[in-house]
Amino acid sequence: MKRIAIDMDDVMADTTVKIIDQINFLTNSSYTYDILMSSDNASKQAFYELYLKHNTFLWEPGFFTDIPVKKDAIEVIKELHNTYEIFIVSAATEFPNSLVEKLNWMQMHFPFITWKNIVFCGHKHMIQADYLIDDHEKNLTTFTGTPLLFTAPHNLHITAFERVSSWMDVKNRLL
Amino acid sequence: MKRIAIDMDDVMADTTVKIIDQINFLTNSSYTYDILMSSDNASKQAFYELYLKHNTFLWEPGFFTDIPVKKDAIEVIKELHNTYEIFIVSAATEFPNSLVEKLNWMQMHFPFITWKNIVFCGHKHMIQADYLIDDHEKNLTTFTGTPLLFTAPHNLHITAFERVSSWMDVKNRLL
Repeated sequence: MKRIAIDMDDVMADTTVKIIDQINFLTNSSYTYDILMSSDNASKQAFYELYLKHNTFLWEPGFFTDIPVKKDAIEVIKELHNTYEIFIVSAATEFPNSLVEKLNWMQMHFPFITWKNIVFCGHKHMIQADYLIDDHEKNLTTFTGTPLLFTAPHNLHITAFERVSSWMDVKNRLL
Repeated sequence: MKRIAIDMDDVMADTTVKIIDQINFLTNSSYTYDILMSSDNASKQAFYELYLKHNTFLWEPGFFTDIPVKKDAIEVIKELHNTYEIFIVSAATEFPNSLVEKLNWMQMHFPFITWKNIVFCGHKHMIQADYLIDDHEKNLTTFTGTPLLFTAPHNLHITAFERVSSWMDVKNRLL
């Protein structure tokens, strides 16, 4: 059975959507996901500057409890789960409070994936799998299997990897 | 640089010592580590029966905060850290409260190993490394590198793996 490692933030979870909400709240702004996905580079740069200045909320209790689930993620991962060995691999050890929150989030939305197949780490280069679905170049570059770049606002410029832009894309690629 | 994956419980941490304390407290007994390491099979069986009956303390907040560090672990892992890439790989996702407690424990006793090189998981068979130092047969059996069995009371009967009985043994084997 082939093994797929799947990242959480901005792959299974709409983490950037919640980050935008937090930045808008903290800075009285009105950024949207569509702006970050657009070619409006001035707005995007302004947003990421605010993000770097205000992102301490990532370390606060509660941030990772109620992130929305990505469209079609539950249905497609459930289908993949019948054909592949699924591991959830999240770079979470940087955010101590996120660990139990991410475990609870998984149990709430993906109860068919148990604690046995959830991995919280920093680096991901020691993960052995046939596929890695991830939004970060640094994780895909060191991966020894087939890397799949999941589209997110911060990776639109990356061309070095095969890209999947939605869970329907993943379904078409792997099922 | 070769990579060593190191388990926490009963390899870096004297987890069984704390478990014995809890069982003695809960059942008004007087088991010792030496009894569990001895050939007194009747006492050992009685202890593990009590353990299976009373081990809910593993899921309670606080259990993993103050486990003693194994003799020579800090010094030897610090030396290994100069020559090898070290990953701490702990099967911790079964115990949600343990996650942040184990992260804090690492920071307190092994501050030279950062969150980037700590992995909390269930299964370990997706971990890619040159060596795995672990006390559980199930983790070593599926490992694709060189397995090293760290002696613990529950693995004295295992003969399928090269054994290390102390951190001085690890030092002599790997440095």
